[in-house]
Amino acid sequence: MTITYTLDVSTSSFTSFTKLLFRWRGSIWKSVYKELILWLVFYFGLSCVYRLFLNKEQRAIFEDVVAFCLKYTDFIPLTFMLGFFITLVITRWWDMMRNIGWIDNISLYIATYIQGKSERARMIRRNILRYAVLIQALIYRDISIKVRRRFPTMETLQAAGFMSVKEMEALDSIVSPHRKYWVPAHWAMTAILRARQEGFIKSDHAVQDLLERVRSYRSSLALLLVYDWVPIPLVYTQMVVLIVRCYFLLALMARQYVTSDTRELKTASPIDLYFPIVSTIQFTFYIGWLKVAEALLNPMGDDDDDFEVNWILDRNLQMGLSVVDDAVGKEPPMERDMFWE
Amino acid sequence: MTITYTLDVSTSSFTSFTKLLFRWRGSIWKSVYKELILWLVFYFGLSCVYRLFLNKEQRAIFEDVVAFCLKYTDFIPLTFMLGFFITLVITRWWDMMRNIGWIDNISLYIATYIQGKSERARMIRRNILRYAVLIQALIYRDISIKVRRRFPTMETLQAAGFMSVKEMEALDSIVSPHRKYWVPAHWAMTAILRARQEGFIKSDHAVQDLLERVRSYRSSLALLLVYDWVPIPLVYTQMVVLIVRCYFLLALMARQYVTSDTRELKTASPIDLYFPIVSTIQFTFYIGWLKVAEALLNPMGDDDDDFEVNWILDRNLQMGLSVVDDAVGKEPPMERDMFWE
Amino acid sequence: MTITYTLDVSTSSFTSFTKLLFRWRGSIWKSVYKELILWLVFYFGLSCVYRLFLNKEQRAIFEDVVAFCLKYTDFIPLTFMLGFFITLVITRWWDMMRNIGWIDNISLYIATYIQGKSERARMIRRNILRYAVLIQALIYRDISIKVRRRFPTMETLQAAGFMSVKEMEALDSIVSPHRKYWVPAHWAMTAILRARQEGFIKSDHAVQDLLERVRSYRSSLALLLVYDWVPIPLVYTQMVVLIVRCYFLLALMARQYVTSDTRELKTASPIDLYFPIVSTIQFTFYIGWLKVAEALLNPMGDDDDDFEVNWILDRNLQMGLSVVDDAVGKEPPMERDMFWE
Amino acid sequence: MTITYTLDVSTSSFTSFTKLLFRWRGSIWKSVYKELILWLVFYFGLSCVYRLFLNKEQRAIFEDVVAFCLKYTDFIPLTFMLGFFITLVITRWWDMMRNIGWIDNISLYIATYIQGKSERARMIRRNILRYAVLIQALIYRDISIKVRRRFPTMETLQAAGFMSVKEMEALDSIVSPHRKYWVPAHWAMTAILRARQEGFIKSDHAVQDLLERVRSYRSSLALLLVYDWVPIPLVYTQMVVLIVRCYFLLALMARQYVTSDTRELKTASPIDLYFPIVSTIQFTFYIGWLKVAEALLNPMGDDDDDFEVNWILDRNLQMGLSVVDDAVGKEPPMERDMFWE
Amino acid sequence: MTITYTLDVSTSSFTSFTKLLFRWRGSIWKSVYKELILWLVFYFGLSCVYRLFLNKEQRAIFEDVVAFCLKYTDFIPLTFMLGFFITLVITRWWDMMRNIGWIDNISLYIATYIQGKSERARMIRRNILRYAVLIQALIYRDISIKVRRRFPTMETLQAAGFMSVKEMEALDSIVSPHRKYWVPAHWAMTAILRARQEGFIKSDHAVQDLLERVRSYRSSLALLLVYDWVPIPLVYTQMVVLIVRCYFLLALMARQYVTSDTRELKTASPIDLYFPIVSTIQFTFYIGWLKVAEALLNPMGDDDDDFEVNWILDRNLQMGLSVVDDAVGKEPPMERDMFWE
Repeated sequence: MTITYTLDVSTSSFTSFTKLLFRWRGSIWKSVYKELILWLVFYFGLSCVYRLFLNKEQRAIFEDVVAFCLKYTDFIPLTFMLGFFITLVITRWWDMMRNIGWIDNISLYIATYIQGKSERARMIRRNILRYAVLIQALIYRDISIKVRRRFPTMETLQAAGFMSVKEMEALDSIVSPHRKYWVPAHWAMTAILRARQEGFIKSDHAVQDLLERVRSYRSSLALLLVYDWVPIPLVYTQMVVLIVRCYFLLALMARQYVTSDTRELKTASPIDLYFPIVSTIQFTFYIGWLKVAEALLNPMGDDDDDFEVNWILDRNLQMGLSVVDDAVGKEPPMERDMFWE
Repeated sequence: MTITYTLDVSTSSFTSFTKLLFRWRGSIWKSVYKELILWLVFYFGLSCVYRLFLNKEQRAIFEDVVAFCLKYTDFIPLTFMLGFFITLVITRWWDMMRNIGWIDNISLYIATYIQGKSERARMIRRNILRYAVLIQALIYRDISIKVRRRFPTMETLQAAGFMSVKEMEALDSIVSPHRKYWVPAHWAMTAILRARQEGFIKSDHAVQDLLERVRSYRSSLALLLVYDWVPIPLVYTQMVVLIVRCYFLLALMARQYVTSDTRELKTASPIDLYFPIVSTIQFTFYIGWLKVAEALLNPMGDDDDDFEVNWILDRNLQMGLSVVDDAVGKEPPMERDMFWE
Repeated sequence: MTITYTLDVSTSSFTSFTKLLFRWRGSIWKSVYKELILWLVFYFGLSCVYRLFLNKEQRAIFEDVVAFCLKYTDFIPLTFMLGFFITLVITRWWDMMRNIGWIDNISLYIATYIQGKSERARMIRRNILRYAVLIQALIYRDISIKVRRRFPTMETLQAAGFMSVKEMEALDSIVSPHRKYWVPAHWAMTAILRARQEGFIKSDHAVQDLLERVRSYRSSLALLLVYDWVPIPLVYTQMVVLIVRCYFLLALMARQYVTSDTRELKTASPIDLYFPIVSTIQFTFYIGWLKVAEALLNPMGDDDDDFEVNWILDRNLQMGLSVVDDAVGKEPPMERDMFWE
Repeated sequence: MTITYTLDVSTSSFTSFTKLLFRWRGSIWKSVYKELILWLVFYFGLSCVYRLFLNKEQRAIFEDVVAFCLKYTDFIPLTFMLGFFITLVITRWWDMMRNIGWIDNISLYIATYIQGKSERARMIRRNILRYAVLIQALIYRDISIKVRRRFPTMETLQAAGFMSVKEMEALDSIVSPHRKYWVPAHWAMTAILRARQEGFIKSDHAVQDLLERVRSYRSSLALLLVYDWVPIPLVYTQMVVLIVRCYFLLALMARQYVTSDTRELKTASPIDLYFPIVSTIQFTFYIGWLKVAEALLNPMGDDDDDFEVNWILDRNLQMGLSVVDDAVGKEPPMERDMFWE
Repeated sequence: MTITYTLDVSTSSFTSFTKLLFRWRGSIWKSVYKELILWLVFYFGLSCVYRLFLNKEQRAIFEDVVAFCLKYTDFIPLTFMLGFFITLVITRWWDMMRNIGWIDNISLYIATYIQGKSERARMIRRNILRYAVLIQALIYRDISIKVRRRFPTMETLQAAGFMSVKEMEALDSIVSPHRKYWVPAHWAMTAILRARQEGFIKSDHAVQDLLERVRSYRSSLALLLVYDWVPIPLVYTQMVVLIVRCYFLLALMARQYVTSDTRELKTASPIDLYFPIVSTIQFTFYIGWLKVAEALLNPMGDDDDDFEVNWILDRNLQMGLSVVDDAVGKEPPMERDMFWE
């Protein structure tokens, strides 16, 4: 579910952003707490071993390993790689959001251009609208695990009212080795032309406009398919995931507090803190940043921040039917407005 | 309110930009002064404790903590994180500005295409225009706390002249579990078609153009809704806010001036300044940068730099009515111009 | 005035780019020389004080202050802040350039679609064209100090031929609390429709196309208004200006050459140069970079690199009238071309 | 073949991304293992030489060379150059993907606008569709080595059904010194106009829409040609490839573990690891990053991550024919839907 | 001439990219070799002076200057400035490429919409096409030195067949203080309307489409003019050129290998290499990067990587005439395709 916090940040005050830090759903805390605890467990394990179980020679080796790890974590350019990667992921994520497929324009055009309150006119309007939503349902099923879970089979789609039995049969009657997302689009476009021939649409301009709306809506949804089919190259994603994990694996040793009475240690911390405060902060930042990327990589998935695709489907069908049927004929009369002179 | 300073920077001279630094409204000074004072209070508190109340051993510990903090602030990659975040926020902010919804194109097209000075013609023109502004008012109410405060209920919208009583009833008569921003769009589009049927519009091209203008205007406003509904992932925002605050929390200790007669301190400053000049500059910069981001995160909010949404609403209604009604028929006669040969 | 040097860099040779360095108009030298001289004066002042007037203890303090400043200039992340800021400024500047408002498309469409060499036809063509340029003149007056200086009053605009006396009266007769940039657009669009009714335009497609051209031209100009009204947030600009100045204020001390016979100085330069060569280079770079940003912040202003808005206005009017009037009827006859077989 | 892993990352959990690391096809491991092994072989070779074969003086020289290489690898700004380059490559790669040329819109418009089930009507629809796919086949042959391998000659294209013998002759009869990708576009557009003249298309709006679809599809494919013809400047690509290789060439020496009993070495590692763990990680990262860029530079090529152009060609032809022929007339009847009231 | 290497990088293998490094035309080697040799000559000159001609005191001064230069080269942020600048230059370069002006769409539309094989019809088609190419020729002459060299006068353009004698006279008969690129566009558009009046074009939709094609083509070319007229601000270009040169001027001293028996040198290299390997690599990289920028700054120029504008002009004219004349009437007959059932 999308996490909205825009209202909370209406003003840029200290308190409003402090409050923001204490949210849990979709928060950085929820993202990282499990992995942070795991990391700390290992950290304290190593710390205990060093402090309690090792003899002098072993401690010396331990200290050398710490120095070694500390020296080499510098070679890992975490910040930039993450920065470039996040920028890429967010660009894709937002482009998907912009092409998520709202039914509003189609439904308003249908309600405007296809006239009459006769049963036939209503049927044409409702069916074209439903076909449009059906395209979305078919495509969402293939790219979102949430929608797939809700509609595991075509029958469940039919039972939910997205298509009738006859339509399901018509869909099945098309034999093709490829996905058949285009079939409801074909039905919708043919129905528009038929409405023109039957006189429910009064002009060819209207046909042009209606087809354009269907096309632009279908193309948006097709773009979602492309985003699903061609993700960021696997090498890139693997590299980023790997680099962050390696960094914190090395940090397990590199950030140990070591002290020695017998020899001078460059890596000795000025004070001996039992809890690695700064490393914890750093872990929260970097892993949090990585989690942003991971969540947005597949925004049709199950994360807190993912798009509410099921809600969009329902909303499109319900609102669409309201627009093309309920609202038609309920326009207010033309009257003088308040500022009339 | 938007802070305009474009005129002041017509030339890139030293003085013009120096003057710019002394502005208060929407300035960096106004953004950071409260938090800077708070930070300095804590800083001087700690400084006093160190200088006045601690004994030698305690001072040594204090100095170690300073060294510790100084060492670890390096691990926090403030600049890049802020840089990437700001770039993202500004991109979104500007895209919202570009889709803020100006009525100009719609109103000019209405005035051009819907002809006649009869009462009916004027009514149609004025009503379509008003419906368009009403969409904006309804959407702004849900995304801007300023507009919501001005129009807490539908009745207040009606009283302000954005809709008539009958229109409010018509709006209420549509039953839908979803937001009804589309209803005035439906009215406007239906009114356009009716005007065509009644002969006020002379061609189907005009219908096509007018609907396109309504669609493009409504889509812009719908995009604002999407920006409101799907903000930058909470994790990202939290992370940036957190990282800056942690940095300056560590800096409270890290930037203390410490001196010691008895032992050599790597962190000792060459000179003992009682006031942390550079840290203050740095604080101003980083917190100022963060404040830019915070203010632009929700540009429909209450900050100095936020969009003047209420003014836009009023301007759209007033100017729109001027265009579609007052200006019609006042065109100057066709004459030879000054360069006629 | 725009500084064009594209021709000089046709080839990427050493000499062509060396020659480029010796240009003065719009150059980095012209941008920074005043402030560089000022900075050097202060620098040498401090240097003299140190070398000539201070006693041993004072010199020691001076050297400590140098060490202090040198240490802390590192905390100021100049490069990135400037880099991000410049990128933002240039993006905006170029988008403004792309929307500067050329009359070409409108005038070509008018000349094509509105037919006839009768006085009435010529008048319609010329007037629509002039109205379009008038929109630009009105908008430029409000966003460019150069155009405002040239046309301080409406009367001056009228005297220059951008509008007739009757048109100025018609403009004044519209009462509105808001800016009236839309009025000439309204006239142009109404004139197009009237030309259709009078038969000078032969089809409704032509009306659609002509209105679309006016709309797209007017929208470009309106975008300029938005850029003028909503600049980069003041905080951001102030921050960048401030950070660069603070940096070079600190550098005044930090870059002093200090030597000491009595104690070891970490900040001592290997050689004692009386002139701070590298700091001068650095000053030229950073201040030059900042100057780019300052000049492009308001490209309608007075800087060397600013758009030649007055020239654009004149060119639009003169060329537009040539297209819609002089060129009409002077098309060459249809003939076989050279490659005809 | 495109590597899809979107489904695996539906949730941002630790395990899902861990699993991702163990994929082989298109993975970072597959990309780098050969070069990593090569590098390690040389590394261990040098290491053996140092440890086993050198005498004291030679070891000293070896250690100096190590110190020298370590010192100078810092001068190579790997991360940024790679970051900027990757961003550029990915932008181009994605723009190519968006213009890869789907037949869906054209085929749906053909099926909608060209009516009738007569043989002539079917023929027109099928032929226009096939011409469109033929443009793609001709262009793909010239930019993708995979498609060229599959269709080495025009005859193979003809044999695969993309064109008939007569069409091949017609194509050959056009004499031109330039590539003839436009010929099938010309046929398709002429066929559309002929269909209008023969009455299969009922309105001029339909002609306009169909031509627009062909144009937009052809322009997308033409953009692919431009991307193929004007790659990222060779200098840039060479520079990035070179810089990464030089870096790891220097690293061969720079990362050797050296120890010395007789003199103090700044480059001595705290512990003597025989296997260069961190360098291996680093190698994997940087070379992996470079491999992303190399693979995406020519996405029409043979890499794991490259576009499946042959599949797209087949899919376009098969699906297109289904849409324009099989599906026509199989639309479901208009019925009341489940939510009818 | 454009350097294409896309085919060579079909697979991301070690060898294919190694081969890429050995190309000469448009390569990094060709870009930098002259300046590299120059730099090395100076470098070795200084090196000789130091090693052979200086006495002890002079050597000490030399060593101090080396230390001084090495210390201060760090203050020059080369990588970022170049990174930001290159990104900007490449964005502009690619946008110019996308607007370079292909005749394909116009010619296909002309061939489709303007019917008949009569001499008059052919003449109209050919002339409109030729006018479109003439716009391009006129504009290219003013922005590309290569085209200007080929067509120094209008007469040469006429002689090459881009316009007839009468057309040149018609062009001259238009008196205007401004450039007359619009005149052929005016002819083309007027010819389209005349073709409609004479019945060669059957519908007003066709007129609308044809004018739109001319407009979009002309606007692309006009954008090239704007890119030529408003380059990247001179300050920015100068700054980047200057900073790179200063860097390598300082490096001439900073990278000298100095050794001293008498005193300890921080800057002493661990080994004494007579040839500055790493500096040479670095020089190749940075100057190579700068050369990319320099070449792309004016892509209409004479560099290896510049657009082949003369070829584009010829290709547009030849291919265009093929499309609008030769191909018309040579469409293959409608037949059943191979998959017909």
